[in-house]
Amino acid sequence: MANSKYEYVKLYEQSDTLLPNTWLVVRIDGRSFHRFSNRYNFAKPNDRRALDLMNSAAKAVMNEISDIILGYGVSDEYRSVNEKKFQKLHKKTFFQKFLVLRRISFVFHKSCALFDRRSRYTLQSIFPCLLFNPNKLVSTVVSTFTAYYVHFWSNFFIDTPLSPPLPSFDGRIIQYPSIENLRDYMSWRQVDCEHSASSHINNLYNTTFWSLIQLGGLDAATAEKELSGTLSADKNEILFSRFKINYNNEPEIYKKGSVIYHNYELIDATTTCRVTDENSVQIGGLQISKAEEEKNRKRKVKAGIILQHLDIIKDEFWVKRPWLISNKPGKIIKVQ
Amino acid sequence: MANSKYEYVKLYEQSDTLLPNTWLVVRIDGRSFHRFSNRYNFAKPNDRRALDLMNSAAKAVMNEISDIILGYGVSDEYRSVNEKKFQKLHKKTFFQKFLVLRRISFVFHKSCALFDRRSRYTLQSIFPCLLFNPNKLVSTVVSTFTAYYVHFWSNFFIDTPLSPPLPSFDGRIIQYPSIENLRDYMSWRQVDCEHSASSHINNLYNTTFWSLIQLGGLDAATAEKELSGTLSADKNEILFSRFKINYNNEPEIYKKGSVIYHNYELIDATTTCRVTDENSVQIGGLQISKAEEEKNRKRKVKAGIILQHLDIIKDEFWVKRPWLISNKPGKIIKVQ
Amino acid sequence: MANSKYEYVKLYEQSDTLLPNTWLVVRIDGRSFHRFSNRYNFAKPNDRRALDLMNSAAKAVMNEISDIILGYGVSDEYRSVNEKKFQKLHKKTFFQKFLVLRRISFVFHKSCALFDRRSRYTLQSIFPCLLFNPNKLVSTVVSTFTAYYVHFWSNFFIDTPLSPPLPSFDGRIIQYPSIENLRDYMSWRQVDCEHSASSHINNLYNTTFWSLIQLGGLDAATAEKELSGTLSADKNEILFSRFKINYNNEPEIYKKGSVIYHNYELIDATTTCRVTDENSVQIGGLQISKAEEEKNRKRKVKAGIILQHLDIIKDEFWVKRPWLISNKPGKIIKVQ
Amino acid sequence: MANSKYEYVKLYEQSDTLLPNTWLVVRIDGRSFHRFSNRYNFAKPNDRRALDLMNSAAKAVMNEISDIILGYGVSDEYRSVNEKKFQKLHKKTFFQKFLVLRRISFVFHKSCALFDRRSRYTLQSIFPCLLFNPNKLVSTVVSTFTAYYVHFWSNFFIDTPLSPPLPSFDGRIIQYPSIENLRDYMSWRQVDCEHSASSHINNLYNTTFWSLIQLGGLDAATAEKELSGTLSADKNEILFSRFKINYNNEPEIYKKGSVIYHNYELIDATTTCRVTDENSVQIGGLQISKAEEEKNRKRKVKAGIILQHLDIIKDEFWVKRPWLISNKPGKIIKVQ
Repeated sequence: MANSKYEYVKLYEQSDTLLPNTWLVVRIDGRSFHRFSNRYNFAKPNDRRALDLMNSAAKAVMNEISDIILGYGVSDEYRSVNEKKFQKLHKKTFFQKFLVLRRISFVFHKSCALFDRRSRYTLQSIFPCLLFNPNKLVSTVVSTFTAYYVHFWSNFFIDTPLSPPLPSFDGRIIQYPSIENLRDYMSWRQVDCEHSASSHINNLYNTTFWSLIQLGGLDAATAEKELSGTLSADKNEILFSRFKINYNNEPEIYKKGSVIYHNYELIDATTTCRVTDENSVQIGGLQISKAEEEKNRKRKVKAGIILQHLDIIKDEFWVKRPWLISNKPGKIIKVQ
Repeated sequence: MANSKYEYVKLYEQSDTLLPNTWLVVRIDGRSFHRFSNRYNFAKPNDRRALDLMNSAAKAVMNEISDIILGYGVSDEYRSVNEKKFQKLHKKTFFQKFLVLRRISFVFHKSCALFDRRSRYTLQSIFPCLLFNPNKLVSTVVSTFTAYYVHFWSNFFIDTPLSPPLPSFDGRIIQYPSIENLRDYMSWRQVDCEHSASSHINNLYNTTFWSLIQLGGLDAATAEKELSGTLSADKNEILFSRFKINYNNEPEIYKKGSVIYHNYELIDATTTCRVTDENSVQIGGLQISKAEEEKNRKRKVKAGIILQHLDIIKDEFWVKRPWLISNKPGKIIKVQ
Repeated sequence: MANSKYEYVKLYEQSDTLLPNTWLVVRIDGRSFHRFSNRYNFAKPNDRRALDLMNSAAKAVMNEISDIILGYGVSDEYRSVNEKKFQKLHKKTFFQKFLVLRRISFVFHKSCALFDRRSRYTLQSIFPCLLFNPNKLVSTVVSTFTAYYVHFWSNFFIDTPLSPPLPSFDGRIIQYPSIENLRDYMSWRQVDCEHSASSHINNLYNTTFWSLIQLGGLDAATAEKELSGTLSADKNEILFSRFKINYNNEPEIYKKGSVIYHNYELIDATTTCRVTDENSVQIGGLQISKAEEEKNRKRKVKAGIILQHLDIIKDEFWVKRPWLISNKPGKIIKVQ
Repeated sequence: MANSKYEYVKLYEQSDTLLPNTWLVVRIDGRSFHRFSNRYNFAKPNDRRALDLMNSAAKAVMNEISDIILGYGVSDEYRSVNEKKFQKLHKKTFFQKFLVLRRISFVFHKSCALFDRRSRYTLQSIFPCLLFNPNKLVSTVVSTFTAYYVHFWSNFFIDTPLSPPLPSFDGRIIQYPSIENLRDYMSWRQVDCEHSASSHINNLYNTTFWSLIQLGGLDAATAEKELSGTLSADKNEILFSRFKINYNNEPEIYKKGSVIYHNYELIDATTTCRVTDENSVQIGGLQISKAEEEKNRKRKVKAGIILQHLDIIKDEFWVKRPWLISNKPGKIIKVQ
């Protein structure tokens, strides 16, 4: 056979696999979004069109890849490994503040191995998506997101057609063994977004920084110097005393980021059930039938996807939405 | 610090790394392209618009990511792991033949660690892209490709606007330690494309299969049965005797696939220099200056990118284009 | 510096890391133990000296590496990947039955990252052993085991000095995210040992097989043929009716394997506490002080290590020994 | 089947694989050898008995695992990750100098995938050892080494029986794509051993340091201070002027380390053949028959293993011993 001589090269395809029964987070990041956002004149510190475009693309990803149970996006500055080194070298941190972009985390339920793909072809055996090449999983999410981002662009940037170089994204994957770890990850992201005391990279800082520039007439270096060493209270004070801005009244989307999930009926929060992996499907334990799985999938579609700007750190978010942990569909909301 | 309580989750970010000094192949694949190509009525066995769109996107990828030295795309049928199982289960192999899509391999030179990114920020230390998370590298290539595929769609499918679900791609990465291994990989792909005696998955088979259906009026099952057990000569005979098709005259793009590379001046092929890793830059050996690197990058842009349909199995292709192996820029072609 | 020219080779040291917060199992296996056991005339189906030597080495490993919370060893036949292929090729399965050896699984608690090594040098920051190269962790366990196996040999094989080629072992590592997964792993091992209905590889089969040969005078091929297709009840019947052997009276060590753990005072089993990861220390949650950690280590030493032959599948084993799950030291047994 | 309920746990066995066609280095390291060498009163700076024991064990490993083409051991100080942090914390570097131990690198030829194991069971298909779990490969080497180290102990430490805690080793594996990379790795090791100008960790430093203490009556801290900032020439001068020691006359084993390889007839060094991967067997290229492979293996046994103390940095070592690169057996040395 003519082919066999070369076919050995397949041996080089190494198959890193994901550990089953872990919560998977695929986090995507805009590439070179500082340049990109400057080129398209994104408003500072937050460009509402850009945020809405990101969220629309994220919702489309969750519609297409129904194993994703949760998406969470935060505004963030662009910091690549290189740029950090660069800043260190050149002592230039301020230019970073000029840009704001979005970073989105998508969560796959730890039991998704049980359900994935089986239904499509009536295979009786377990077909674990988790055993897949992580590169395939990450690139699928990133590619789907990119496709919608480019496709939806003209809906949000109506008079500004996209032209090369086009926006692109990269992704990475992280595995969390327990729901505590996953919630801590989500909390870390939200803390980072809102009011991180330990870093400059948060919405309060950016709001104040840009108010000093846009409303106060300062240049970037002076604004940066002015904020150096200030605490949250100081920034609140600057905003209010100089610009009559009450930070509490700023839109939640900037302060909390955006949470995206399947829109089932909320559970009464007074129920004080604990949020643990115990409540979730165990691999090797309960296995649902193909028919039930298909029913669940349809129910997800019926429930639809909702985008909100909420606290996801406190228990309340998770207790009211038990389907996130259990991966069992909730109740469909009745239209009055 | 409010943040530190959650920050431990960063410990879970595992950093698989790529082995330095290896040739990297990122291979991207259209997802669910059977459904996609049916939905948009791709011509069978080859849809020229779809091929040209793929090639345009691939050229754009090489323009943006200048470390890629070579791209190679072949028409292929869609075969996911699942679908193979499905076929086995249902004894239905024929439906596979209905679709043809493209799979593209992008090659990074094994020395790319030396050059990558350094130039951008004047870092003096080596910054090895190869030590990066492979997920980031793959997702970057896939995302860039997807962006251009969606963006260029309307140039090729003029009257058929794209609508959700949008096309998407996945990717994987393979490392080859020697140039022999890399050439064998490329040869394997091209053999697979053109005349694989060992499989049904090649252009000769598809051309004959679809001629039997479209010109001969057979249904798919009958056509498949008729071709069962035939050799290449038999298929050539069927094409010629029944449909007056001389397979040799079929367009090269279908038979050879598409090769994409930087368009430097070819070297006289009578030079019988051997093609080995010896001719290439060694990590830890020759290191070029930042200035020289920047010069090389500009030269790549000046040279431009060419798309051809050639034999890449024989030595000739590689001997005439020594820059592929050496990663040293060739001579710019003089415009007469 | 003379050195710098070569030092780049360090870049090739890839650092696969273990996922934090997972239960780690290091499983070691005797290499070529069929040949080895034949050479030293191990008794069949179970050689008590060989078992006791294995168990002594395993206890020594747990004494030296105090992060190991549990060891479990089972008699097993040697089946390498190669040999399975070989058997398939040559239709010779019977020769496998001639040998019995031990395979030992060592369990590290999922929170071991918190404690490990910190104490030794008063480092305040978390130093997660789990982030270590898995090769280092596995090879350390295997090396320690091998050292004691060779060292203790003459205690058990009194008149048979060891001579080259010496016994050696290999190891692998498996990560389990939840206590359910870990318990299922342990159960799988014990089921395999005792009464696996689905395979030939268990003590009941071996006891019957060797009784047919040693007491019944059959040759291996005939004995194998006779047992082909028999159920557990059939083998019990053969043992009892032909050889007056009541399998229930066989020593527990052969039927249950050997469990090794720190010998704290058992908890009253009527306590129906559930066995979940909830009861265990969470990374990122409770962190114990260095002083407490050192106290715990000393308590482990004081408790000592006990070897037993028990059912580890049922809840009782785990409920009575909560320190296995919690990694908090139990009560020291009072000497009456 | 009773077993099937638990068997899913096998899904968690992740199979990291080694990249084919790369040079593999398994490097083993004595664990806690500072404490170990103090306990057994190893002579400083070099204990000849300890070195000879290490070398004997290394030779035994190469006899058992015939795919290893080269071993190289150097005296080294013990530096774990922890200890480096510790030193930084406590500014105590000097205690490190008190100990000297051995670290051994074993090299597998990059083509070993072709030959390994096939012969043992007449399997016709390629059975690539390289596709094995790296943990298995590393732990096998480390276990074999440990077994011989313990077994041979009494041959070298005649009046000092070994007692728990026993010596143990850990290992790691590194892949090098090209022979240049491998030679640079070996050179790095030897430079580090002999005369590293950039570090304190080398034989010249240790010889001088211990002469100052043992012959000059200094304490460790004073000796360290005295050597601070000295160059090689300074240390040579101290040794000669104060203690009449000509460092050039020190035994080669301390200065060069120990090289171990199959003892074929040397090739005339005037042959100026280049040392490249070109000269070696390519996977996917030449494949040798099972009979030839078996012949080669026997020839290795006949050639025997030789231990020397040579320069392995210069071309001469490699040019004279072409079998190291080609993996083709050399000429058996005729006994006169």
